[in-house]
Amino acid sequence: MRVALLGLGNMGGAIARNILKAGHALTVWNRSPDKAASLVEAGAGSASSPAEAATGAEIVLTMLADDRAVEAVVFGAQGLLSAKAAPIHVGLSTISLALARRLTEVQGERYVSAPVFGRPPAAEAAQLNIVAGGAPASIAFAQPIFDAIGQRTFVAGEDQATANLVKLCGNFMIMSAIEAMGEAMALAAKNGLDRQILFDVLTGTLFGAPVYRNYGPALIEGAFRPAGFPAPLGLKDMNLVAEAANGARVPMPLLGIIRDHLLQTIARDGDDIDWAAIGKAIGDNAGL
Amino acid sequence: MRVALLGLGNMGGAIARNILKAGHALTVWNRSPDKAASLVEAGAGSASSPAEAATGAEIVLTMLADDRAVEAVVFGAQGLLSAKAAPIHVGLSTISLALARRLTEVQGERYVSAPVFGRPPAAEAAQLNIVAGGAPASIAFAQPIFDAIGQRTFVAGEDQATANLVKLCGNFMIMSAIEAMGEAMALAAKNGLDRQILFDVLTGTLFGAPVYRNYGPALIEGAFRPAGFPAPLGLKDMNLVAEAANGARVPMPLLGIIRDHLLQTIARDGDDIDWAAIGKAIGDNAGL
Amino acid sequence: MRVALLGLGNMGGAIARNILKAGHALTVWNRSPDKAASLVEAGAGSASSPAEAATGAEIVLTMLADDRAVEAVVFGAQGLLSAKAAPIHVGLSTISLALARRLTEVQGERYVSAPVFGRPPAAEAAQLNIVAGGAPASIAFAQPIFDAIGQRTFVAGEDQATANLVKLCGNFMIMSAIEAMGEAMALAAKNGLDRQILFDVLTGTLFGAPVYRNYGPALIEGAFRPAGFPAPLGLKDMNLVAEAANGARVPMPLLGIIRDHLLQTIARDGDDIDWAAIGKAIGDNAGL
Amino acid sequence: MRVALLGLGNMGGAIARNILKAGHALTVWNRSPDKAASLVEAGAGSASSPAEAATGAEIVLTMLADDRAVEAVVFGAQGLLSAKAAPIHVGLSTISLALARRLTEVQGERYVSAPVFGRPPAAEAAQLNIVAGGAPASIAFAQPIFDAIGQRTFVAGEDQATANLVKLCGNFMIMSAIEAMGEAMALAAKNGLDRQILFDVLTGTLFGAPVYRNYGPALIEGAFRPAGFPAPLGLKDMNLVAEAANGARVPMPLLGIIRDHLLQTIARDGDDIDWAAIGKAIGDNAGL
Repeated sequence: MRVALLGLGNMGGAIARNILKAGHALTVWNRSPDKAASLVEAGAGSASSPAEAATGAEIVLTMLADDRAVEAVVFGAQGLLSAKAAPIHVGLSTISLALARRLTEVQGERYVSAPVFGRPPAAEAAQLNIVAGGAPASIAFAQPIFDAIGQRTFVAGEDQATANLVKLCGNFMIMSAIEAMGEAMALAAKNGLDRQILFDVLTGTLFGAPVYRNYGPALIEGAFRPAGFPAPLGLKDMNLVAEAANGARVPMPLLGIIRDHLLQTIARDGDDIDWAAIGKAIGDNAGL
Repeated sequence: MRVALLGLGNMGGAIARNILKAGHALTVWNRSPDKAASLVEAGAGSASSPAEAATGAEIVLTMLADDRAVEAVVFGAQGLLSAKAAPIHVGLSTISLALARRLTEVQGERYVSAPVFGRPPAAEAAQLNIVAGGAPASIAFAQPIFDAIGQRTFVAGEDQATANLVKLCGNFMIMSAIEAMGEAMALAAKNGLDRQILFDVLTGTLFGAPVYRNYGPALIEGAFRPAGFPAPLGLKDMNLVAEAANGARVPMPLLGIIRDHLLQTIARDGDDIDWAAIGKAIGDNAGL
Repeated sequence: MRVALLGLGNMGGAIARNILKAGHALTVWNRSPDKAASLVEAGAGSASSPAEAATGAEIVLTMLADDRAVEAVVFGAQGLLSAKAAPIHVGLSTISLALARRLTEVQGERYVSAPVFGRPPAAEAAQLNIVAGGAPASIAFAQPIFDAIGQRTFVAGEDQATANLVKLCGNFMIMSAIEAMGEAMALAAKNGLDRQILFDVLTGTLFGAPVYRNYGPALIEGAFRPAGFPAPLGLKDMNLVAEAANGARVPMPLLGIIRDHLLQTIARDGDDIDWAAIGKAIGDNAGL
Repeated sequence: MRVALLGLGNMGGAIARNILKAGHALTVWNRSPDKAASLVEAGAGSASSPAEAATGAEIVLTMLADDRAVEAVVFGAQGLLSAKAAPIHVGLSTISLALARRLTEVQGERYVSAPVFGRPPAAEAAQLNIVAGGAPASIAFAQPIFDAIGQRTFVAGEDQATANLVKLCGNFMIMSAIEAMGEAMALAAKNGLDRQILFDVLTGTLFGAPVYRNYGPALIEGAFRPAGFPAPLGLKDMNLVAEAANGARVPMPLLGIIRDHLLQTIARDGDDIDWAAIGKAIGDNAGL
């Protein structure tokens, strides 16, 4: 397949390598072009604009930081939409429902929303979990690419934005699990109960899921730097959830608590701290 | 071993059967004596008071509904403390930290707190998870009984009350997971995303733990009756967590939300609804 | 003074009449032009665009519904900024800090933020309270107009956006007082205490302020229609507060509760209900 | 009238002096007897037990720190109930609804709940506001005493506990106003808006009530020591509100926030700080 990939951050770079490995023809573009070099060495073509990358591709993937970046790459001068061809566009980025809806309005069935679960190591290992929303034929068309970069594809529905909502809900659920563990561990610590023992009982009984195993140790050790996922990015995602909740008129009080703890974390500890550091904020508030 | 068991509710009855199966000599007592009949048929002795049950026993187990019941059975007329003998006392009930501390003050190393995780079917199958707190020698002494009724024993610490705290934290964590799923599912439902799909993605990725698998289906189907664990009992436990948090000066805003949703559930839907029905309250508030 | 007024809603119309009464020369503009008719009869001039209205004016007032309307009137085609003249611009609307900052960036000292406290009857009676932010000379220049339409002018600071922040804080404080009364009254009602008696004690002791006197009776009677200030507008303002809090990294948990109660109110009772109906949501949740 | 007063703290002492001034015959009792000395000099009689104080009195007032103190004085050995006489008992203390109901059960119409609003200076000046609940005839009987110690008597209802509920609601409303101002001032401070200006606008417009005027200056200056009303006592009262809300099944999310901020304040800043210091906690969380 002839594939274009726009956006070569940690996630995009790893995805590009796996597409090449799977034997597809790949053209890449990145805002700062130096990131393309190693991929070109590995056999990728390089384009000087999103439009140029899209020309001749059967499928274009975007993997960008936020709504603003996606808007620039799609709607901007030399953007995806100014290409003569109109390939299938698969949006892998975590974006707002509003932008997913706008992308759908403009591109129709050619647009597939397919945000991913997984950090850079999972992307390197082609072990991402992909949640796809859009026309069944378009998703089927993209399936070989999903197989090249991920372990499993979930189909959220024919409405593209539902896939983005699943992604946002997933991040909200992660933060919720961290909030819950953080409060329980603060209560433990102030009552002389070893956090590690609490963690062992929880993960040894009803709570034996990756979300708890991944974040528990950081909460026990209070180790939040370097940031795996910085608190300001977590806040950005929680704000996207809040925007969706606001639009659909859904009260989400737990979301409110999480956002307030993220604001506290950033206000007191800076931007370079992991989003799990809401556990530190909870402990601070208990006088720990 | 010569064992006495005080309290023959759904949990206590199942535990008694497993103790008999394991070949221990068992004497039982219950406030309403008819519950003892089938156990006597199965080979248990029956006592007319806690004190009588304790006389001659090496170990006494209590499995009762709440603080008040434990206080009556331990400190009351004909209570455990009025027995001439002073066997090891293992408290299996979910009680307050304050009562655990009082029981420790009075009984010292002879008292072991050992609350359990698991519903009646797990108790029947001798698959409980037990969290024990107390003197190592006393816990070791009770281990054969723990082996007879459970699948695993976790040791919380030498301070008896830490075991009770683990149990309370576990219940708080369960309610937190339900709250998080409930909010995410309300957001999904109001945005046209199928709750079942959201659930499949979550449990297929980071959230593949029993707590999500156990409670997700009820949230998807809105099936909260008959109550596996009635909301008022859930509220009682959350109030015990709040009491512990208050005593230790630990702000727990997520706990506050859970308690408010339990109050709403009980106020609007009555006492005979499952504690997972906080998911219904969340949906009601979103106009679902 | 030669004054232009852009925006003739309930508030703008009343303000226009008072400016005429005070003897100033007034030119008006409104998106739907029919609203200008009665003012023209009363002596005002009428313009076909914001730019035309601004031409020849010494001072231009804007009194519009929201950020979007202000942006269109200021930055749009035929907008205020396309006028040849550059009179003092006094923004009376309730807008975001972000827009206030953008207006300041573009217009510098010629821009004064001056949002107002007061409903249409107060506007009719020239009894508004005005909070002005901006260059002292510009505020002084606008003072005769403030005197014509209000009872008192407060100066927030030289930074224009501080005036908008005062306005947003004021609306947040109103909602907070309603939330507090709503919770107290629900507790009263469910314990057999007459809400009116509670209200009388409160306003007769520490709580004798207009905010309580204005909203208490609606809470007692459950009378939230017709809406004095519709819940969706209240939500819009609370979202502006949240945006400011997010930008400045300020956790505001009470704000979170208020927004959730507004979402619940709108989701369950529709758009045409007063913002004080969060008191109904509180009562609903208590099973009243 | 022949009056007995049990409890001579700051409030009780001031009340005693005003009863003497009004010409009533007064017998006093206090747990630590030295507090009675100056009152005896001023003409009061002194008793060695609550029962002795009650003997011969037409009316007995109790003004004590908390539920526990009231229980001891009423139900304890040599307590009020062990007196031979059974005078009207007027409970001025801030106590739980549960205790008010128990006192009513035992004493019937002879018991009047009459908690007061006002700090020691108001008590000295006979300017308390009294909220009375109970049988109309009993309240009428006590009216001369209320007139001697307060500026105004509100009647809450014939159910004694309603008066206690009014008092608890009043304290909740005070904390709510502090919470709201605290959040608004944190938002102001982080956006470069002078807290004093915000305060002036608020109290100059809709918020011109004593509750705002009393607590605003401390929030502006961050002056929370010495404590006018220590945070732990505030927490005790908020816990009584929570107990009432729990019993009546009333979700009160704002109450939850207030309690968490009090817990944070006490955990971080100790027991000797004013309850208004929740404003400090709010600012701390914003990184101020």
